Amino acid sequence: MDSYEAIITKRDRREYDGRAIGADSLHRILQAGRMAGSSSNRQPCRLIVLSDRQALEALVPAGPGTRAMLSAPLSIAIALQEGGTGFDVGRVAQNMMVAAWSEGIASCPQGIRDQDITRKALKLPADFSVGMCVAFGYPAAGAAQRESRKRLPWDEMVHHGTW
Amino acid sequence: MDSYEAIITKRDRREYDGRAIGADSLHRILQAGRMAGSSSNRQPCRLIVLSDRQALEALVPAGPGTRAMLSAPLSIAIALQEGGTGFDVGRVAQNMMVAAWSEGIASCPQGIRDQDITRKALKLPADFSVGMCVAFGYPAAGAAQRESRKRLPWDEMVHHGTW
Repeated sequence: MDSYEAIITKRDRREYDGRAIGADSLHRILQAGRMAGSSSNRQPCRLIVLSDRQALEALVPAGPGTRAMLSAPLSIAIALQEGGTGFDVGRVAQNMMVAAWSEGIASCPQGIRDQDITRKALKLPADFSVGMCVAFGYPAAGAAQRESRKRLPWDEMVHHGTW
Repeated sequence: MDSYEAIITKRDRREYDGRAIGADSLHRILQAGRMAGSSSNRQPCRLIVLSDRQALEALVPAGPGTRAMLSAPLSIAIALQEGGTGFDVGRVAQNMMVAAWSEGIASCPQGIRDQDITRKALKLPADFSVGMCVAFGYPAAGAAQRESRKRLPWDEMVHHGTW
């Protein structure tokens, strides 16, 4: 899909059908995350692919909103090293989600609050926590109805020179 | 440009040539930022287009690293409402930077520390601060040399199941 088209049509969705995500698609999604830029190329993010149901169930209580991962064929936890920022995580996540969407795979970020749970469930090193999880899956029929999230009018969103 | 190609070839660059960014390109960059998803569609980000040299000079001391904006034909400040996160800013920035890159326009995030300066320079409402500035411009000749930033080996970056 054309880059601009993929970017502006991508919507966050948390309803998926049962189709598995192929190895080639997964590779491209991970590579998209891996190639995200970072300040001074510090690369504070790591990607943990979650497809095992038991591991996911251990993560869900770290929520809120993580339950959607149980119905996704695949989720990816973005681990963040101390000194990295949410901005870094956002760049990685958006790269992965747009790359996925450009081949028809929907996705939705899943916020994490309880890092004690994630550290234990994912066996993270002490200097890492989970910045965000992202669920991926082919969109369920009917999900499109909820996808057309309105955006702020242009003049509220965009300012010139000063606010 | 194909979406995946744009995502994985995009590098952060802060050396630009003198070419101006056309109105159509600017529109697409802003629309890419505007369409970024956010938790519960809260849309905590606003975009402030900075092309006036005087305004930019007022912003530079809010740095570090903001000096590159003075040699960019265009920068965009991403204002963030209280309650929004760096993750939201990262999603907006990455959308704008990949959309720009897909038409040959390079970019680089410019971190902001001193919000007193930005609030005054950009006349922000009290509940907004600047999450990040992004400089945009056509890449200067020779900049490509510095663009091939290495990434972590795949096995360090990607884990399966647990770390």
